[in-house]
Amino acid sequence: MPVGTHGTVKAMTPEELREVGAQIILANTYHLFIRPGHLLVERLGGLHKFMNWDGPLLTDSGGFQVYSLGELRKISEEGVKFRSPYDGAYHVITPESSIAIQEALGADIIMNFDDCPPYPAEHAYVAKSMEMTSRWARRCKEAHRRQGQALFGIVQGGMYPDLRERSVEAMREIGFDGYALGGLSVGEEPERMYEVMDHAAPLLPADQPRYVMGIGRPEDLIEAVYRGVDMFDCVMPTRNARNGMLFTGFGRLNIKNSRYTEDDTPIDPTCGCYVCRHYSRAYLRHLFQAGEILASRLNSWHNLHYYLDLMARAREAIAEDRYSDFRRDFYSERSNGEQ
Amino acid sequence: MPVGTHGTVKAMTPEELREVGAQIILANTYHLFIRPGHLLVERLGGLHKFMNWDGPLLTDSGGFQVYSLGELRKISEEGVKFRSPYDGAYHVITPESSIAIQEALGADIIMNFDDCPPYPAEHAYVAKSMEMTSRWARRCKEAHRRQGQALFGIVQGGMYPDLRERSVEAMREIGFDGYALGGLSVGEEPERMYEVMDHAAPLLPADQPRYVMGIGRPEDLIEAVYRGVDMFDCVMPTRNARNGMLFTGFGRLNIKNSRYTEDDTPIDPTCGCYVCRHYSRAYLRHLFQAGEILASRLNSWHNLHYYLDLMARAREAIAEDRYSDFRRDFYSERSNGEQ
Repeated sequence: MPVGTHGTVKAMTPEELREVGAQIILANTYHLFIRPGHLLVERLGGLHKFMNWDGPLLTDSGGFQVYSLGELRKISEEGVKFRSPYDGAYHVITPESSIAIQEALGADIIMNFDDCPPYPAEHAYVAKSMEMTSRWARRCKEAHRRQGQALFGIVQGGMYPDLRERSVEAMREIGFDGYALGGLSVGEEPERMYEVMDHAAPLLPADQPRYVMGIGRPEDLIEAVYRGVDMFDCVMPTRNARNGMLFTGFGRLNIKNSRYTEDDTPIDPTCGCYVCRHYSRAYLRHLFQAGEILASRLNSWHNLHYYLDLMARAREAIAEDRYSDFRRDFYSERSNGEQ
Repeated sequence: MPVGTHGTVKAMTPEELREVGAQIILANTYHLFIRPGHLLVERLGGLHKFMNWDGPLLTDSGGFQVYSLGELRKISEEGVKFRSPYDGAYHVITPESSIAIQEALGADIIMNFDDCPPYPAEHAYVAKSMEMTSRWARRCKEAHRRQGQALFGIVQGGMYPDLRERSVEAMREIGFDGYALGGLSVGEEPERMYEVMDHAAPLLPADQPRYVMGIGRPEDLIEAVYRGVDMFDCVMPTRNARNGMLFTGFGRLNIKNSRYTEDDTPIDPTCGCYVCRHYSRAYLRHLFQAGEILASRLNSWHNLHYYLDLMARAREAIAEDRYSDFRRDFYSERSNGEQ
């Protein structure tokens, strides 16, 4: 899922998102709550209409964003009190209000409000946090009223297998339309993240969507899919694009690099996206150097196409029962490639 | 002509420029000379290919930009020596090198290298400047070799009718494929600018394109067309868009205004552009407040559509011999309108 923090996937129109193959996009409850406000969005007909996206939408719960506020937030059993970094105003988000906000925004899939422990953190701390997330999840389930809107549960438990097991158990007992692993990609080594997925993904119902939140690099997605994960969201393709970092099958390419000054080849000669069909690395480097908006646009376009095409090919490989080969090829193309 | 300073009309793709009705776009010789360099653009196949625009292109001569450098430039009979504001390096542009740069860029229409006097300026100063522009124009004509590339002459002379006459005479004597009025929109009152056009436009050959450089507001274009002018370029539609100022038939609209916070109507309910078909003022205001790239994109899209549609309707009115009515309606719609 491309990430549309403020109700727009940065630098892209909805039509372009369709063209690069996006089937569903994510919007951030926390950011839209702060600005322009969920009630305003609701009065204007909901988030789909507001942002002109008629496909599926998922909103996160705001838990991760308020956790990221650090010193600005205070967590209690009731919920999270925090100061808006925009205007310093105090706000509270509780499990019930997170659901109310997400119901007002009107996404197709919403998430339970969770507490995200830092990494590293002691077993006792993570256990306490995870237990509270379970109690919050139950409150979310009870608060959720809106018809036709799926509610997913978020499994926490940090890097501790026993806590992940207890969290999965609690979430499955409450019962959700899909399950996510939260609290990953918070600074741990990729191997540690893969270990958690190795252990926890198979504990989730096989007939419901499995979602790992906030990842990641292309290789993280390849590894997560290998472990049975279905859904992802990450700002990496768009954020890196705006910083001039482009993804290709042969690895990453930094368009700022002076080696591309006169390079009349596309980002990736094997890529069929709009950007690779029409623009040279030299032009893209020029646009970036000149600080042009078109640089952010074209780079985002290419990176999203890369990610979504990678996932489309992964789905195909799974359907044709050759995912292991696909995964092996992914790594060998990358190591054989050159920029 | 939408203005593509650095080889991109800010925030727009070439396909979108087509969609809003652009037939020709302008690029700035000075900026492309400084970065990425005209020889690089030439080696990569010329500006059309570099920027993926297969329609007509016009480059200005760089004269106005080096004039705008103020303290950083020194003008002599030979040409203009200036310091790059990017890296402090010294450069010289002469009439001959301006043509060489424009030949390398490869636009369909190029401009003679001119000296643009400040406003206000004494008659004697403007006369001297205008005479030098005429000598430079001759050097440009002699230097121009590239086949299939039109060369336009720029008439100077400030706000002095006698100097405009002498400049027109000199330019016509040299002989160009089209003629421009330069040195307007440099701080003078609109009425003063209209006076110059009243006087000078009819002196230009009726069977060749007449171009007023660097204007302007919608009403300036309406007035210039009324006086027989055919071509314009201005950053106003795109620059104002990025600042949240939107053009409509009923006047200007500042999307930052809090009155649009919950306004679910489009920028202009009578406008048929992509933006007005799909987005509300409330969403556009939200995007602007959040500093989103999509704000610049959608605002630029609408404003360019407004300008190009206005000119398309002006052409239609001329063809149907009802331009005076069209001009009158332009003002009455605006004064009757409300936001």
